[in-house]
Amino acid sequence: MANNGKPAVVLLSGGLDSATVLAIARSQGFAVSALSFSYGQRHSLELEAARRVAQSIGVVNHRVASIDLRVFGGSALTDDIAVPKGRAMEEMAHGIPITYVPARNTIFLSFALAWAEVLQSSDIFIGVNALDYSGYPDCRPEFIHAFEAMANLATKAGVEGRQRLKIHTPLIDLTKAQIIRRGLELGVDYSLTSSCYDPAPDGAACGECDSCLLRRKGFRENDIQDPLPYRRTGGRKQP
Amino acid sequence: MANNGKPAVVLLSGGLDSATVLAIARSQGFAVSALSFSYGQRHSLELEAARRVAQSIGVVNHRVASIDLRVFGGSALTDDIAVPKGRAMEEMAHGIPITYVPARNTIFLSFALAWAEVLQSSDIFIGVNALDYSGYPDCRPEFIHAFEAMANLATKAGVEGRQRLKIHTPLIDLTKAQIIRRGLELGVDYSLTSSCYDPAPDGAACGECDSCLLRRKGFRENDIQDPLPYRRTGGRKQP
Repeated sequence: MANNGKPAVVLLSGGLDSATVLAIARSQGFAVSALSFSYGQRHSLELEAARRVAQSIGVVNHRVASIDLRVFGGSALTDDIAVPKGRAMEEMAHGIPITYVPARNTIFLSFALAWAEVLQSSDIFIGVNALDYSGYPDCRPEFIHAFEAMANLATKAGVEGRQRLKIHTPLIDLTKAQIIRRGLELGVDYSLTSSCYDPAPDGAACGECDSCLLRRKGFRENDIQDPLPYRRTGGRKQP
Repeated sequence: MANNGKPAVVLLSGGLDSATVLAIARSQGFAVSALSFSYGQRHSLELEAARRVAQSIGVVNHRVASIDLRVFGGSALTDDIAVPKGRAMEEMAHGIPITYVPARNTIFLSFALAWAEVLQSSDIFIGVNALDYSGYPDCRPEFIHAFEAMANLATKAGVEGRQRLKIHTPLIDLTKAQIIRRGLELGVDYSLTSSCYDPAPDGAACGECDSCLLRRKGFRENDIQDPLPYRRTGGRKQP
């Protein structure tokens, strides 16, 4: 098998995209160390999903790094402001979403870089996607390339010329429907994942937030039933 | 005054270098938000020094972000292995020091970037120094330039072309003696700073670690007494 057990660090949120990325890294023969973050999310369901997904797909290690992005404020995902839905979300469609967390992928990739250096790994995987999330600056290919260039100047291995670090973004040009198709081919159990920005206390997804709408559309385009339970199934309510 | 109260983020460890950087940022007219990290250091004296320095020089905010680099291991500053001294340190002089923390400056600058974005600041200051610490890959000018390029692709402000982020490294070409001279001109009280990698429980510096030796040499070259108490004053013991 290609890569034959080479170590790789995979950023794993517990969502649909990162679960698919983990399955892709495994299918390429990497021995995966999965990295999740506890960063003041309003719900810990994501981390529980990350644990289930890591166990299901198979990893060497799964670590959860604690960081506190709330210290700076600045986003609906970590502050106590409402997650936008329906019309509010559509109005933001051409700008950068309010759910954007400042410098989040920069911070997550920096931690992945630290762990990769300790593991002597030259491969980091991240599930960024340029089509569905074009509003997030740190999901674009030019950002990823700039991070890779920086990372190769930041580390012992890069400076000593021993190995060139690569940031793998296997989903970057895929639609949500294509991501789901790829994951299903690799046997990903999407009932273990969590995508909703605003789940009910029992874990049911809201079905209406940015992330839920994209996910449901992806399953619909594959003519497949999303295995997740949703709180409402009757489509979007007016705000 | 130049900059006239423009917001800037200054990385503040509580050491001699970052205290000098804070004074330089203030002297240039920036309104400073100081950022320190609690990252599993073996001693909290550094954070106490950062608080004293921030108060003494004057800042708008001082935040301490908690991150856990111990989750990955990999360095004498966060693991329970001995800090090198004397001959062991000399033997490492031409390589990368064992006290190197993986991707540390990448992680610290990423957090500074997040806060700068929230503050709508385009100025980050960091006390890296290419002469004294040439063994650390993430203290070199090429790393800083690459980080700056990446940061300008990572943020709303960069993408929307509103402002170009700059990483200021006012110490990068200075010797330790020059840094101390500049700080004294700006009124920095170096008795408030903490530089030692291995201080005594009462806070006295060891006088023998990498950091203490550099600091003492810097004061000696200025013919000035270092105001810090040292545990031993008789120079270096043989290992």
